[in-house]
Amino acid sequence: MPSRVEALRRVLTERGLGGFLVSNLSNCRYLSGFVGDAGWLLVTDARCGVAVDSRFWEAAKQKAPDFELLPIKGDLPGWFLRTAAEWGVNRWGIEAEAMSLAAYQNLTAAIARDQSPVQLVPTTGLLEAQRSVKEPPEIELLGKASQLAARALDHARSAARTGMTECELAWEIESFLRENGSETVAFEIIASSGPNCALPHARPSERRIEAGEPVLLDLGARLEGYCSDFTRTFCVGKPSPKLVKVHSIVLGAQLTALATIQSGMTGEQADQLARTVINQAGYEQTFGHGLGHGVGLDVHEWPRVGARSQDVLVDGMVFTIEPGIYLPGWGGVRIEDTVVMEGGRARPLAEADKSLEAR
Amino acid sequence: MPSRVEALRRVLTERGLGGFLVSNLSNCRYLSGFVGDAGWLLVTDARCGVAVDSRFWEAAKQKAPDFELLPIKGDLPGWFLRTAAEWGVNRWGIEAEAMSLAAYQNLTAAIARDQSPVQLVPTTGLLEAQRSVKEPPEIELLGKASQLAARALDHARSAARTGMTECELAWEIESFLRENGSETVAFEIIASSGPNCALPHARPSERRIEAGEPVLLDLGARLEGYCSDFTRTFCVGKPSPKLVKVHSIVLGAQLTALATIQSGMTGEQADQLARTVINQAGYEQTFGHGLGHGVGLDVHEWPRVGARSQDVLVDGMVFTIEPGIYLPGWGGVRIEDTVVMEGGRARPLAEADKSLEAR
Repeated sequence: MPSRVEALRRVLTERGLGGFLVSNLSNCRYLSGFVGDAGWLLVTDARCGVAVDSRFWEAAKQKAPDFELLPIKGDLPGWFLRTAAEWGVNRWGIEAEAMSLAAYQNLTAAIARDQSPVQLVPTTGLLEAQRSVKEPPEIELLGKASQLAARALDHARSAARTGMTECELAWEIESFLRENGSETVAFEIIASSGPNCALPHARPSERRIEAGEPVLLDLGARLEGYCSDFTRTFCVGKPSPKLVKVHSIVLGAQLTALATIQSGMTGEQADQLARTVINQAGYEQTFGHGLGHGVGLDVHEWPRVGARSQDVLVDGMVFTIEPGIYLPGWGGVRIEDTVVMEGGRARPLAEADKSLEAR
Repeated sequence: MPSRVEALRRVLTERGLGGFLVSNLSNCRYLSGFVGDAGWLLVTDARCGVAVDSRFWEAAKQKAPDFELLPIKGDLPGWFLRTAAEWGVNRWGIEAEAMSLAAYQNLTAAIARDQSPVQLVPTTGLLEAQRSVKEPPEIELLGKASQLAARALDHARSAARTGMTECELAWEIESFLRENGSETVAFEIIASSGPNCALPHARPSERRIEAGEPVLLDLGARLEGYCSDFTRTFCVGKPSPKLVKVHSIVLGAQLTALATIQSGMTGEQADQLARTVINQAGYEQTFGHGLGHGVGLDVHEWPRVGARSQDVLVDGMVFTIEPGIYLPGWGGVRIEDTVVMEGGRARPLAEADKSLEAR
């Protein structure tokens, strides 16, 4: 953790910032170890502290031993301005994506009221960029979370039956993940069937799985905060010819991206690798989301891997590769791996059967 | 849902707003029925629509039939300004607590760039105030979610054993909730034991339950989006004399608040009812959080029930009553019910054993 704080301090110096106010809770955890529902970090060249109300004092002491405990007392803006004065730092970077407009307005109103010399400088992505390149212990945890997700997919392939509801299958998977060590699920499991697979973010319903139709499972485990994210689409019974065709195109797109992504590419270029395969197969406009997204303490984080993303892929980044084809009224197919960039190439963090037939 | 939109429109008229941009996702669900990870509602006197990208088009059509589907294309600020122009509405209320500073800055930059006549008016609490007073069908769902939470507490009392870890007990409870119809848990279950009970928001650990010490369980179910929130503290084996004493004080404070809260009181006055009991018993400064919080589609929502809250409690509000005493190094006790204001009084939405002895 101390080296992470040092890396942030170098960025603050480059940007002419005396201090940084961290309000994104995943960034708080990354930098300090603190895990809670509410809290800020304050980081300057000389000091770093975790600011929490009394509910989280004990947790902050235990989990963020390298940070001073800064008990918030009274109203938050007034407390912050007093602390800034005590620390002798006026120019503070803030996280524009994590701070609400209301919190910002409360702070600026307090600055005006107190005639404080504090200046707030909105920033985006300072810690998100740092977090996007993983350290070896992070990759190890992401690997374990990925292997657990792969085992859950394997289990689901065996458990899926015609007549089972989507909710039942989702719960079967969640129980498996939790009983095998996942702290929580990384996100609400998607278990969709038939036409529901046309909704990329479907919620499990009471619909019963039928033979021959797509069953799409999107799931992830979480270990020490680190997530994984995998999707498979398979079929109970004999698949329809259309499903065989759509599945093979998506699989081709996914394998193409896996094999040809190279470090130095932008997220947009990576996206294009898979999109071209789908478009050339005659399925333009059916792949309505980006190729993927970074995965770490958040299940969606940097790098962004999709149209318009100029994020450059480099070794140590962990992200998903998840092309899909969605046909309203019929269904859809998506195949997704979580990968790590290593030696300039994408390596899946776990292997799980990609075939169309359930067991 | 249409009557909810009408109620919002009356508030917009009072405030001189031509339109309202809803970005809080629970508010989106409340007003339209739409459930998703991303989306906005646009509401004016003449029209109302749900704005989502292609991932959520199908879900929006299915879940928000009273709202027009507004497919977001291209960049969000540019799309919003074109829509505002098309609808002929310039003065838009926005939700300052739900909109990030970055989103606000992107919108204002687009307004400047396009020389758009659109004005953004930050607001807080418009829909939160409306949501804080529940309709009868909402109270029915909250009641069912409460009864399920009470059954889970009952189950946990029977299941708790010395030697069991906090994580094992938490998972026992979560399985019970999910297998009995809870969509998800309302929040991450707290199952703490011994000294860990001194952390009001502890996460379950690998610590094993010992005889005679406090076991604190804080849990909630979720049905059709509506949450419940209950806490009990009990003991496996014979409780220590200190635990008996602390438990009886907290129970006294909780029953006092339950019996004496009346409509017309502020959140602060309600908080004081329980706090006085704890203070008079000699445990000042050990009850470091507010008495409670509103419960609905969010597990923490309006009304606020604690020091400094001027929210007035009225019939139809649903909130928690949860005093506690926390003693670092030793442990803690909290007892919590979710209640509804009815006929001017607080009625618990479910009954669950409050005694100190597990079964």
